Amino acid sequence: MRIDNLQYANWSEKVFRQMRAGGLDAVHVTIAYHETFRETVLQIERWNRYFEEYSDLICHAKTAADVEAARAAGRTAIIFGAQNPSPIEDDIGLVEILHTLGLRFMQLSYNNQSLLATGCYEAEDPGLTRMGRAVIAEMNRVGMVIDMSHSADRSTIEAAEVSNRPIAITHANPHEWHPARRNKSDPVIRAVVAGGGMLGFSLYPHHLAGGSACTLTDFCEMIARAADRYGIAHLGLGSDLCQDQPDSVVEWMRVGRWTKAMDYGEGSAAAPGFPPMPDWFQDNRDFDNIATGLTATGMETAEVDAIMGGNWHRFYAESFGPASG
Amino acid sequence: MRIDNLQYANWSEKVFRQMRAGGLDAVHVTIAYHETFRETVLQIERWNRYFEEYSDLICHAKTAADVEAARAAGRTAIIFGAQNPSPIEDDIGLVEILHTLGLRFMQLSYNNQSLLATGCYEAEDPGLTRMGRAVIAEMNRVGMVIDMSHSADRSTIEAAEVSNRPIAITHANPHEWHPARRNKSDPVIRAVVAGGGMLGFSLYPHHLAGGSACTLTDFCEMIARAADRYGIAHLGLGSDLCQDQPDSVVEWMRVGRWTKAMDYGEGSAAAPGFPPMPDWFQDNRDFDNIATGLTATGMETAEVDAIMGGNWHRFYAESFGPASG
Repeated sequence: MRIDNLQYANWSEKVFRQMRAGGLDAVHVTIAYHETFRETVLQIERWNRYFEEYSDLICHAKTAADVEAARAAGRTAIIFGAQNPSPIEDDIGLVEILHTLGLRFMQLSYNNQSLLATGCYEAEDPGLTRMGRAVIAEMNRVGMVIDMSHSADRSTIEAAEVSNRPIAITHANPHEWHPARRNKSDPVIRAVVAGGGMLGFSLYPHHLAGGSACTLTDFCEMIARAADRYGIAHLGLGSDLCQDQPDSVVEWMRVGRWTKAMDYGEGSAAAPGFPPMPDWFQDNRDFDNIATGLTATGMETAEVDAIMGGNWHRFYAESFGPASG
Repeated sequence: MRIDNLQYANWSEKVFRQMRAGGLDAVHVTIAYHETFRETVLQIERWNRYFEEYSDLICHAKTAADVEAARAAGRTAIIFGAQNPSPIEDDIGLVEILHTLGLRFMQLSYNNQSLLATGCYEAEDPGLTRMGRAVIAEMNRVGMVIDMSHSADRSTIEAAEVSNRPIAITHANPHEWHPARRNKSDPVIRAVVAGGGMLGFSLYPHHLAGGSACTLTDFCEMIARAADRYGIAHLGLGSDLCQDQPDSVVEWMRVGRWTKAMDYGEGSAAAPGFPPMPDWFQDNRDFDNIATGLTATGMETAEVDAIMGGNWHRFYAESFGPASG
């Protein structure tokens, strides 16, 4: 089972064919950064058209069983996620509506303060809001995973504690390895895995030691150390691959409609666009390189398989259905 | 199997308990008259709360199998429908979105001209629009039933011809029996049943010969004659029960936001509100009276059962899933 738990490509037949060439059984795709509910529904409509048009390559998945069926049929299962709670607006009832439409991951905040929690670029992190606690309970009830990738530390630790089901950081790396603002400190990762949660390793160059020049060996040895520290069962991939996107898209991610000024996020005025990907991970066809790199660290086949997708598959099975009892 | 294929009550625990007392295995409920997409989603959110709060009495059904499961569990299955295409606005992609959220019936027009077809109160009926034909194909594809209860004759006959799956008139009676504007002429009913479609008999007094004073015998003999003429397999009930609703609701149905003037629809300035129901059909507990009345016409038990719900159940099984092939 091979799963990439975060991508936001400029979707096309080419990208879907590359998913197949890369042996991907499932991909968690972002369908909202700053979109309202109605705009998010438009994104789902767009995906429905892809599912009709490219039914030989991809299909929609809402459950772990759907992923297994896609694998058996030689297709890549697509799982919807939102990087921001903007799709639920100020209406907790939209959590169940969006779950019915297939949303399986939702970040509680994206860089900024949201109605629910604090983002990692705010100066102050007062922790979960009142609505944040209510929405966590509702996400727990219906089976929507709380993703804290772009949230601030206190909010993340509180979410891990308040949630009665495992949460996730779908795409980030340990801060110790590369002290980027989006990478996660040891206490944050420990809080997430203590509750049975998952960390997906990012291949976005701003999250990599050495940036675009990061070596495969360095990346895979970082994963091996994380496995020793946090337990291999809690680790997977969330590449953050934004293939074929124009730089206007990274601007939308960073600025949305929340400011009239420019915000460069992890970039800078000198390098405002998407950074080049490492030469060993250019697109969806390169997942074999990562499996090879992990094997080279001394991991056994079962361990490599767990990180390449087995752990996410198990997590989906635990997380995507309604709460029991 | 006992099914009422059209109600719009002022929903409450009392009404749900009466559904159970009346032995109803399924009820098709209206969730939109003039509501936009977002407003329709708010109605679904309201139903989600009912499903949580009254889970011992009702549950949401999207398939005939869901109805069977509800029956086995002693609950009434609730099926969503819209009396107007307003929930899809001008966006054909919303057909699949609303189907995913459970919408299983949608009228192509409600009294007035819509983007899709003509309503039964317009002076002219030019038939299906371009978008109407496109939406019928999309409804056929996903498995959403075309309901022409409030549409004009030419539009209805064209819909029956253009649709490649059976359509329905969920709530109306033969015009020959009672020449109300909302009741259906013989050619219209023949067009619907020729394609395998269904007619649901209405108990709304404006649709009854004699109005609120219509007798059970008269109503059931009308059904028996329709069975002789159109074939019993095409007939069911669609009571149009609007229990406990204030008269402001019938105003909303008639006027929506389309005029600033008053429109009395089937009522009048002298009798603007909901008419009183016949004494033998006051609420959901009175379905036994209809079964008794049908038996009294000389129908066999299997025929009575077919009209009381068996036909709708079969129709659901044929209609609610994606088109085959």
